[in-house]
Amino acid sequence: MGKVKVCAFSISLDGFGAGVNQDLQNPLGLGGKELHNWVYGTKRFMSMIGQAGGSTGVDNEMIEKSFENIGAWILGRNMFGPVRGAWPDDEWKGWWGEEPPYHVPVFVLTHYERNSFMMKGNTEFHFVTDGIDAAFTRAKEAAQGKDIRIGGGGSTIRQFLQAGYIDEIHLAQTPALLGAGEHLFSGMDMPALGFNQAQRIEGEGATHFILTKG
Amino acid sequence: MGKVKVCAFSISLDGFGAGVNQDLQNPLGLGGKELHNWVYGTKRFMSMIGQAGGSTGVDNEMIEKSFENIGAWILGRNMFGPVRGAWPDDEWKGWWGEEPPYHVPVFVLTHYERNSFMMKGNTEFHFVTDGIDAAFTRAKEAAQGKDIRIGGGGSTIRQFLQAGYIDEIHLAQTPALLGAGEHLFSGMDMPALGFNQAQRIEGEGATHFILTKG
Repeated sequence: MGKVKVCAFSISLDGFGAGVNQDLQNPLGLGGKELHNWVYGTKRFMSMIGQAGGSTGVDNEMIEKSFENIGAWILGRNMFGPVRGAWPDDEWKGWWGEEPPYHVPVFVLTHYERNSFMMKGNTEFHFVTDGIDAAFTRAKEAAQGKDIRIGGGGSTIRQFLQAGYIDEIHLAQTPALLGAGEHLFSGMDMPALGFNQAQRIEGEGATHFILTKG
Repeated sequence: MGKVKVCAFSISLDGFGAGVNQDLQNPLGLGGKELHNWVYGTKRFMSMIGQAGGSTGVDNEMIEKSFENIGAWILGRNMFGPVRGAWPDDEWKGWWGEEPPYHVPVFVLTHYERNSFMMKGNTEFHFVTDGIDAAFTRAKEAAQGKDIRIGGGGSTIRQFLQAGYIDEIHLAQTPALLGAGEHLFSGMDMPALGFNQAQRIEGEGATHFILTKG
């Protein structure tokens, strides 16, 4: 079995992984766009939005790496979209347009049933209504020995952390200050969960910390 | 009037400014020593403990700078010592030996009266029992136009932040993970307090963030 990883997860200086009041206009919540300033100019991001050019430094490398050897993703419902409650129809297909950047099976945690569907570029979205253990089991099967990436948001990461499922976390520490939102580490005892130290890598727009167990 | 600053304040990746269970053997609380790994090898720290040598890079510069133009300090009681409750006598004179690194008046917040006293190198400790406003007034008078440094710990910084007194905060973001302790930003809305963005400076052992107002 591969690793279970959180990659390229941006946090603000005051510890938030996303802003409040997420909606269609603010997929990352208010102020959350600043969290990802280190991403927008990179070659990888530019190519994801169909543009040429972009930076090729440390930040870009970290993003490239975050997509390597991933066999399946698990996302919280809010990372998939702004729709709350039961799915009114099958119209909402994620934030990412016709060809999402995943290219592997993606398991979306939700309380409301919905049929799986395939997008261009081989991204298949599945909706899991019976909790994180069920999602984890299905992701392992789908990943076929490759790594599983827990995409977020904060509360999804916190649930997987507390269940002891996560092997590695790559945080992008940014200078943004959000003031309110989802606190990633509040109430989490990381050493008790096996994470004692992190590796620090300075990027152009963020400082990257790789937390591993042991 | 000078600025009111927090300087070289180390925080862990999970957001703590000190460990739990501070005592005589653990001035920084359990695990808190790791928070300051970026400090110990610097030239400035070596010279403070009477030794030659040490690094002269960014981290050292940040420490040097943190002592520049300071006219007075304000410290929480725990930063001054492990004694709790009423002062049993005048024996405890701080963590720093005969010559503390301050060389200016230092105002210690405490609920228990104690007489001021002078140490070698012109550090005079004063004990303020009537709250942060009183300490701030006395520190301003003592600083004579120079900057006032709020030394810590976390709860002292939080009180001064919430009162709107702090102009600038320099955090040293370290890779340490503490799991428990004093959360610096929990419940604090930094943008609402006027802090919207930070400058990021890469050091050898920590990433420095300078938060200013506006």
